[in-house]
Amino acid sequence: MIHYEYNQFKNDVLSLAAICEPFQPDTLVAVARGGMTLAHALSMALDIRNLQSIRIESYDGEHQRDTLTIRGECDLSLSKKVLIVDDIVDSGQTLDALLQYLRVRYPDIEFKSAAIYTKSSASIQPEYSLHEATDWIDFFWERDFLK
Amino acid sequence: MIHYEYNQFKNDVLSLAAICEPFQPDTLVAVARGGMTLAHALSMALDIRNLQSIRIESYDGEHQRDTLTIRGECDLSLSKKVLIVDDIVDSGQTLDALLQYLRVRYPDIEFKSAAIYTKSSASIQPEYSLHEATDWIDFFWERDFLK
Repeated sequence: MIHYEYNQFKNDVLSLAAICEPFQPDTLVAVARGGMTLAHALSMALDIRNLQSIRIESYDGEHQRDTLTIRGECDLSLSKKVLIVDDIVDSGQTLDALLQYLRVRYPDIEFKSAAIYTKSSASIQPEYSLHEATDWIDFFWERDFLK
Repeated sequence: MIHYEYNQFKNDVLSLAAICEPFQPDTLVAVARGGMTLAHALSMALDIRNLQSIRIESYDGEHQRDTLTIRGECDLSLSKKVLIVDDIVDSGQTLDALLQYLRVRYPDIEFKSAAIYTKSSASIQPEYSLHEATDWIDFFWERDFLK
């Protein structure tokens, strides 16, 4: 297990911002909950005021692929280039479902995605990712706020 | 100026979660951008999966009160008790406008609000706040990710 600390995050945000910057997104969409802290940090690093979030629910079960539900609406009516931000792309299912959903609703927007960690086995790879996830990542936001 | 560090944030999140807990919110709405990291942390501390965000734009000008625009939609169709989360309630204008907007759209939802800092002069006081803001607060998310 990798203990992912705030101090590493600080460096990673700057590195991730540097590789995302050429895309020049006008909007960041955080995948809640995992992508919220990262998207906030990237919005500061990239100086992007249009920061929103979207939520996807997945239920464990035999047919997990059938039970992804997108909740929460973005207002991307003023956006042209949108960066989807999540902490980790694991199976890739969430990101895949989100991109399909958003591309249908906003066919004229260019979407790209960013994550700190990506598994090499993910069904979809984000355009911008810093590290390959070869172990369980214990992000500080999943650990530091538990009672 | 108060340098607000991650280590203080860790303690504050637990304290804020403890005073918000009796409300038993089912949904957290982060006020973007400032409330995003806090809302993420509170969602972990309170074990609330329904984490969303809303965005409000304010323009400086002679008639600032007239130029608050709410951007981004929440999907609160499944919510009954919603906690609005921001880092600081300063003039109170943002929180006031948001609550008015949300209460019209969702008259059956009970809304309360939480912040780390509140100014005593704010036009509206959140139900849950930890500290009085008597100086400029330099939050780590406004400082640590700048190039």
